[in-house]
Amino acid sequence: MSSLLVVGSVAFDTIHNHLGSHDRVIGGSATYASLAASQLAPVRLVGVVGKDFPREAVDMLRGHGIDTTGLEVANGETFHWEGRYSDDLTSRETIKTDLNVFADFNPKIPTAFRDSEFVMLGNIAPQLQLHVLDQIDSPKLVIADTMNLWIDTALDPLKEVLKRVDILVINEEEARQLTGFHHPLAVAEALRTFGPDTVIVKRGEYGALLFLEEDIFCAPAYPLKAVSDPTGAGDSFAGGFLGYLAENGHTDLRQAVICGSATASFCVQDVGTGALQDLSRDHLEKRIHDFRELTCF
Amino acid sequence: MSSLLVVGSVAFDTIHNHLGSHDRVIGGSATYASLAASQLAPVRLVGVVGKDFPREAVDMLRGHGIDTTGLEVANGETFHWEGRYSDDLTSRETIKTDLNVFADFNPKIPTAFRDSEFVMLGNIAPQLQLHVLDQIDSPKLVIADTMNLWIDTALDPLKEVLKRVDILVINEEEARQLTGFHHPLAVAEALRTFGPDTVIVKRGEYGALLFLEEDIFCAPAYPLKAVSDPTGAGDSFAGGFLGYLAENGHTDLRQAVICGSATASFCVQDVGTGALQDLSRDHLEKRIHDFRELTCF
Repeated sequence: MSSLLVVGSVAFDTIHNHLGSHDRVIGGSATYASLAASQLAPVRLVGVVGKDFPREAVDMLRGHGIDTTGLEVANGETFHWEGRYSDDLTSRETIKTDLNVFADFNPKIPTAFRDSEFVMLGNIAPQLQLHVLDQIDSPKLVIADTMNLWIDTALDPLKEVLKRVDILVINEEEARQLTGFHHPLAVAEALRTFGPDTVIVKRGEYGALLFLEEDIFCAPAYPLKAVSDPTGAGDSFAGGFLGYLAENGHTDLRQAVICGSATASFCVQDVGTGALQDLSRDHLEKRIHDFRELTCF
Repeated sequence: MSSLLVVGSVAFDTIHNHLGSHDRVIGGSATYASLAASQLAPVRLVGVVGKDFPREAVDMLRGHGIDTTGLEVANGETFHWEGRYSDDLTSRETIKTDLNVFADFNPKIPTAFRDSEFVMLGNIAPQLQLHVLDQIDSPKLVIADTMNLWIDTALDPLKEVLKRVDILVINEEEARQLTGFHHPLAVAEALRTFGPDTVIVKRGEYGALLFLEEDIFCAPAYPLKAVSDPTGAGDSFAGGFLGYLAENGHTDLRQAVICGSATASFCVQDVGTGALQDLSRDHLEKRIHDFRELTCF
């Protein structure tokens, strides 16, 4: 089992949805991805929080085997995002983005983390993602999750990052925006010209597509009767995906995609990180089995 | 192998899309479904056309083993739909719907067709679908394809039809409209209360979901680099699906869904029915194999 480094945001999210208002729940891309991956491999977290970040939340992360040595506590307040979801949870509007200490985040990789073999670059500026990669000795596998903000505001550094990324995990909408294509094969072919030899297109409630050379794998989303909160589902997918690879030594990308999909399917069943905190390995294995039932013919 | 009856529209479609304008190509729900099913089982077609419907088109259908005894030629012009697709083909606007002879369509099932075991009710008014069912001796399996028009304008007769339908094939958007739910499990549960014990939710470029009691099957759409024309894809799915069941005796619904998905994936690769006309059994088998490659893990 290999070490897995996650770099990204750690935040408070205030979420308004069909269930009500949820004030300052623990969130952020690195939080979701770390909790998701922690089921499968030891996780090293690098991020920044303010003095207001609760000790209990750090303890909760540690309780999941997450090494928080790289979680810097800076003077100021923690990144705070506030948003409102549509009733069907397919869209959301941002009410407020207070970057706070995240605005000056300059990820410092602790010396003990520099030998990390599996690296997940969460949603931080591409310039910072490059800075992270410069601090890692010789990563075996680098995955990056993009977000449309960087496509709009930092396209050139984003392209530099993509040259150094093995697996790009990207939302379908972002992938279409970045490439100008609509149909998945054309999108994947265009994305690979940027550098990554493997592309995973996340399609929300429709699952995910994996493109590896000529090979294509189509994974469903787990059909749920109700969804509580999609916040962090994409990060949970990436965490579960990379966790599987760190545990099993980068062997079977299809199994890893299913592991990511299964993890994400738990994430959305509770508000914030609640379901990920409660997730057990048994539940995860059971759901992976259910995915097989769901797709075999 | 059992006989398969398809009742629905036979039409001219004038299609404007990213490839140009395509004037009065042969279309209609029954045409697409019949051609799709004809790969697998003998098809009996019931519909109406005008005096302007070309003899060559009827010969083409017959050339595919489709019995056109039930294709009435009425005084007047053939149903003509004209529409324009968005460049990404995900939406379309209707420019013109000239019902013509279809306005007075009153499906008469030829005596020789009354023993049909597998029945597909294509997109015609629910009142006419009921009239069709009254003329069939003892169908083994009835499937219906709905369209949002009937949800808006003929909800009560539609509910009567659903009581007599074994398998409902429905677009995801329509299914959400009809039930008021968003998430697939809730949608399927609500749809089954109307009558059908099996529900198939078509999700366009995202594939299809099959719900049969507690069993759920998720089929992908075949990833294509480019799509020429999505017109008739849903009808081709239903035709390929029911064709499989008629050929194999209502055994494996999952295989039937994949057969429908594979058939639809060919349909969209050409404008109108071009690709269905050229489809061979070998090509279909090869694509069904590709679906296995696409989903196994």
